[in-house]
Amino acid sequence: MIHFDYSHARSFIPADEMKQLAQPVFRAHEMLHKKTGPGNDFLGWVDWPMTYDVAEFDRIKQAAARIQAHSDVLLVIGIGGSYLGTKAALDFLNHSFYNLLPASKRNTPEIHFVGNNISPVYLAHLTDVLEGKRVSINVISKSGTTVEPAIAFRLFRDWLEQKIGREAARERIYVTTDKSRGALRKLADEEGYETFVIPDDIGGRYSVLTPVGLLPIAVSGIDIDALMQGALDARMEYLVPDIQENVCYQYAATRNLLYNNGKQVELMVSYEPRFRSFAEWWKQLFGESEGKEGKGIFPALAEFSADLHSMGQYIQDGQRLLFETVITVKSPALDVNIQPDVADSDGLNFLAGKSMDYVNKKAYEGTMLAHVDGGVPNLIVEIPEATAYHLGSLFYFFEKACGISGYLLGVNPFDQPGVEAYKANMLALLGKPGYELQKAELEVRLRAK
Amino acid sequence: MIHFDYSHARSFIPADEMKQLAQPVFRAHEMLHKKTGPGNDFLGWVDWPMTYDVAEFDRIKQAAARIQAHSDVLLVIGIGGSYLGTKAALDFLNHSFYNLLPASKRNTPEIHFVGNNISPVYLAHLTDVLEGKRVSINVISKSGTTVEPAIAFRLFRDWLEQKIGREAARERIYVTTDKSRGALRKLADEEGYETFVIPDDIGGRYSVLTPVGLLPIAVSGIDIDALMQGALDARMEYLVPDIQENVCYQYAATRNLLYNNGKQVELMVSYEPRFRSFAEWWKQLFGESEGKEGKGIFPALAEFSADLHSMGQYIQDGQRLLFETVITVKSPALDVNIQPDVADSDGLNFLAGKSMDYVNKKAYEGTMLAHVDGGVPNLIVEIPEATAYHLGSLFYFFEKACGISGYLLGVNPFDQPGVEAYKANMLALLGKPGYELQKAELEVRLRAK
Repeated sequence: MIHFDYSHARSFIPADEMKQLAQPVFRAHEMLHKKTGPGNDFLGWVDWPMTYDVAEFDRIKQAAARIQAHSDVLLVIGIGGSYLGTKAALDFLNHSFYNLLPASKRNTPEIHFVGNNISPVYLAHLTDVLEGKRVSINVISKSGTTVEPAIAFRLFRDWLEQKIGREAARERIYVTTDKSRGALRKLADEEGYETFVIPDDIGGRYSVLTPVGLLPIAVSGIDIDALMQGALDARMEYLVPDIQENVCYQYAATRNLLYNNGKQVELMVSYEPRFRSFAEWWKQLFGESEGKEGKGIFPALAEFSADLHSMGQYIQDGQRLLFETVITVKSPALDVNIQPDVADSDGLNFLAGKSMDYVNKKAYEGTMLAHVDGGVPNLIVEIPEATAYHLGSLFYFFEKACGISGYLLGVNPFDQPGVEAYKANMLALLGKPGYELQKAELEVRLRAK
Repeated sequence: MIHFDYSHARSFIPADEMKQLAQPVFRAHEMLHKKTGPGNDFLGWVDWPMTYDVAEFDRIKQAAARIQAHSDVLLVIGIGGSYLGTKAALDFLNHSFYNLLPASKRNTPEIHFVGNNISPVYLAHLTDVLEGKRVSINVISKSGTTVEPAIAFRLFRDWLEQKIGREAARERIYVTTDKSRGALRKLADEEGYETFVIPDDIGGRYSVLTPVGLLPIAVSGIDIDALMQGALDARMEYLVPDIQENVCYQYAATRNLLYNNGKQVELMVSYEPRFRSFAEWWKQLFGESEGKEGKGIFPALAEFSADLHSMGQYIQDGQRLLFETVITVKSPALDVNIQPDVADSDGLNFLAGKSMDYVNKKAYEGTMLAHVDGGVPNLIVEIPEATAYHLGSLFYFFEKACGISGYLLGVNPFDQPGVEAYKANMLALLGKPGYELQKAELEVRLRAK
């Protein structure tokens, strides 16, 4: 399973502090499992790998097979939690150039995201690559009124209906939404779209293993049974309340200790470009869960070795506010050997016969020690292989660590009150009925400078 | 030209502090232009838009036309400054799905990067998409011995020679390197590759407007004359030493004042997915220039509105260590209107007839005011349009602001001593001759935990 190593952070934490966290960690564990803490109506994810609806899961697989059979492209319309988890899984497990492969090699539809921004340029460009292709849509929104996905769905539903007619479009639109309420549920029922349910007790950033993520992930050909099995086994492994035995809780505790000792920014690092989107998912998970009441570690990411040549100087010598969490894989999916060169013009013949993975691992080890020497604690999260099973475990590992970590920090890790401020301003400025006074106030401020 | 507005940061800076910076800014200006400050042997970029080699520039355009004519793919081999600036320009100006467009629509080669990581998976996957295509290579390295690009060049040079023979490969390999020294220069001269020069007095992160960036940028069809003209006009505009008139210096000063007043993290924000890579270039520019001696703002990026649904909560309510610098474009390249919907099931008919760009701008205005209210100062950098000309200006604006900013901070903005630490460790662990003792020491530490 997942191996966690905080030995390269120990010297940054007073020796007795870890021990002193045993009790708070135990209390956080109890709050999660007895549902007695803040946000306790959003704990559906804790037992989800065991309690999910098996009939719906089968229906997801059937829908995925249908989409694969009749589509060149799947458009996934969603934002935040309805986007980042899926993107994380697709990038983590699929071919690095998935959409660029010939269809005959890929055997599954291209997958594009939309409704995750308001850029007219992106939208117009996206329609260019859809030209002449058979498109299916999976729109994901609890309410159906979140501005970004709602605009995108309005546009692409219209686009699809104009291409193939309203009747045929009904067979190409798949809706993931609330089980009974909201604008999107109402529309889906009226039109007869096939629907999947976003559980009431699972927030967006915890939803990747629900239909939110599972349908598009399955369309790409990933084994969602293995994904859920990995999460199920992780759930079992991280049930033990004792921090000495629970590496998930050790991660939660360690990052809080580092935070209490002045480390305000956590960099999720990997040496595989495919893992970057996983770090984006992790940024939402922790940033949105903990960034409140003026508190919380600022989550950022780095992709090494690329970013060693851009952010490496800062990490080594800049403000000492960083720590790193490195995601590493024991066995790579593929490897390539470095060949000898007769002229040895680049002086790299000392690497001849070695594999790229060997070089990548030595870069990781050397970097970790250099950064630790520079005052940057390193936490290591290692998985055996980059498979669907281990990704399922990783999702669960970080979800649970986040719940524990938020409780240790003293916040409600399952709400997001701060995201309303900009939404209200935006709707007011856009002239939504009912916001007239706020609109006038904001416009005065914008003119005043 | 570029419009800079710090009115939404003023309340975070004591009133007299900006005035007190007039003299230090003037001194920094003098250090840059009289070359009297630290790092003064790396100031070639200051006058580069005026002093670059016109004959070489023409040769770049000819080489680009040749590559366009005989290649389906250009492989760009480089890392750090030999990668991020090019990527920034390609993404900023080209089609959002450039590589995915049919060749007949794109009319220029696919462009892929390699040598910017050590991932065997990425490398193996890249060879999959090269299958059956005519490939040219532009390898970019001052020394030719930086491990990542050197390994990639070794592999793909061999790959190309096996495909088309050593003789034909000579016509497909373009080398950007030192004018006279180094392993890559030597090899290029021996093999007769066409070469372009990385100037001695311009560091990697300042090199995008040299052949380092210009060749691959030109291959993608971008007008590099316009790019250089934008930089040239920016050079002229930001020659004035008075901070009252020089918005480039105002940006440099404001971010230092925010830093001195407790803002330790700068988020470069945009509302266009195409600008993300520009922010990655900016991260290297500022992070590597200022992150030293335990000092420097930590640079990070956000792509709105996507990241409002992930990092929005943190920005609004988390630790108050952030400020934002928003890059915005007055007129979008393309726009899309929102249509009315008879049923108005999503309740968005109040937006009918409005354009996406209008909605995007209101999201930006509303978000800015919400974040300012939440304690996050906002700086605004606005360009009229996302054209090559304005991108050239932006590159120069930030390069010069970075030089001024680094001098205000009291560091040498043109060196990067911290990147040696991990490199030495890596080479030692890889068994490079001469590192035997260091290797033994590191291995003891790795075993010890």
